[in-house]
Amino acid sequence: MQQESTLGPAGPFSDEERAAVYRAIYSRRDVRSQFTPAPIDDAVLERLLTAAHHAPSVGFMQPWNFLVIRSETVKARISAGFERANAEAREMFPEEKRNLYSALKLQGIVEAPVNLCITCDRSRGGRVVLGRTHDLNMDLYSSVCAVQNLWLAARAEGIGVGWVSIIETDELREILGLPESVVPVAYLCLGHVTELHERPELESIGWQKRLPLEELVFADRWGNRA
Amino acid sequence: MQQESTLGPAGPFSDEERAAVYRAIYSRRDVRSQFTPAPIDDAVLERLLTAAHHAPSVGFMQPWNFLVIRSETVKARISAGFERANAEAREMFPEEKRNLYSALKLQGIVEAPVNLCITCDRSRGGRVVLGRTHDLNMDLYSSVCAVQNLWLAARAEGIGVGWVSIIETDELREILGLPESVVPVAYLCLGHVTELHERPELESIGWQKRLPLEELVFADRWGNRA
Repeated sequence: MQQESTLGPAGPFSDEERAAVYRAIYSRRDVRSQFTPAPIDDAVLERLLTAAHHAPSVGFMQPWNFLVIRSETVKARISAGFERANAEAREMFPEEKRNLYSALKLQGIVEAPVNLCITCDRSRGGRVVLGRTHDLNMDLYSSVCAVQNLWLAARAEGIGVGWVSIIETDELREILGLPESVVPVAYLCLGHVTELHERPELESIGWQKRLPLEELVFADRWGNRA
Repeated sequence: MQQESTLGPAGPFSDEERAAVYRAIYSRRDVRSQFTPAPIDDAVLERLLTAAHHAPSVGFMQPWNFLVIRSETVKARISAGFERANAEAREMFPEEKRNLYSALKLQGIVEAPVNLCITCDRSRGGRVVLGRTHDLNMDLYSSVCAVQNLWLAARAEGIGVGWVSIIETDELREILGLPESVVPVAYLCLGHVTELHERPELESIGWQKRLPLEELVFADRWGNRA
């Protein structure tokens, strides 16, 4: 079973290739409103899932599963769950922010041709997983790396992705029939897009400002300005 | 404060650009042994941190900070913390796996010219954060998206990244002086690489196999084969 581990040449990409990677990183958006109704080709979806499956995972645990949702019935139930949670969420904000909150479109569950739930099976790989002995969250983090791989690949494919986080986890679990050991990490909406916001919507509308990077960087210890 | 949110044209990348994004995704590795001693240019490091800072974040919360560690003293303390935790970790595995476990090089803390801790400030953005009302983990997940952005950008720059997860969180917190609200999400080792493993090391040595993607994909509900 043990095999030679082969090293291959590696090094920086060409300038054009590097620019393409940064283009994906900088032009990726959380999409709620720009989905076109065009279906996603199976070949494209398979490329996106394969990219997600090649994310790093703790102890090579690969804790993820991919639930591809096209059923209108399932989408309608998810959408109703979102509406309930979103009404609760609105009430949690200070009164002066509630009108702006209500005006935001926060999901495209029904319009997006494909919904995708990326999960984390916390029991995969058995009782002890290499690298997860001292931080039990590491498996959840691996599934998030899969989300981000997929998100960037989707940008390159012209597919928009929106992450819906305003829904009760238990409701999501029940609608999708998830076993107890499985956590729904990300509920995503996917569809073709021909336009994207040039800046994050929450920045453009003045909900939050982008923080200056230099205020976030420390040298050697918290609080030491670099 | 409210501004027009501008839509720009978007769509699939050129074939060459798309291939570059996939190249980063497929050739990215968790690096423990291949670091060269060459220092990382400040300009390169700044590009990597800027890429991380452009990750998606729940409610545009940007919960991350970046602790750039070059101090040999700090690295030595982290390294000692790893050694202690790794000795504990080894004992958790069944006896037949312990020799293989001990033979694995799981970190390059001292050899890597730069260590980087990416954190999550759970108090950032106040008591209620848009999109984090129903899943309190969303802020941690945002910081993980920043890790994966940086990891892929680093691949394009010829910089290897290794994630060290075998260390007590409280020890990491103490060494780096993190406030109580701040979680160390990822402790990373960064350095130039000229060679990389062609497959994940844990796959090559037979620690774990890559799971067939088709077994991980379900249609509409857990357990429904696509």
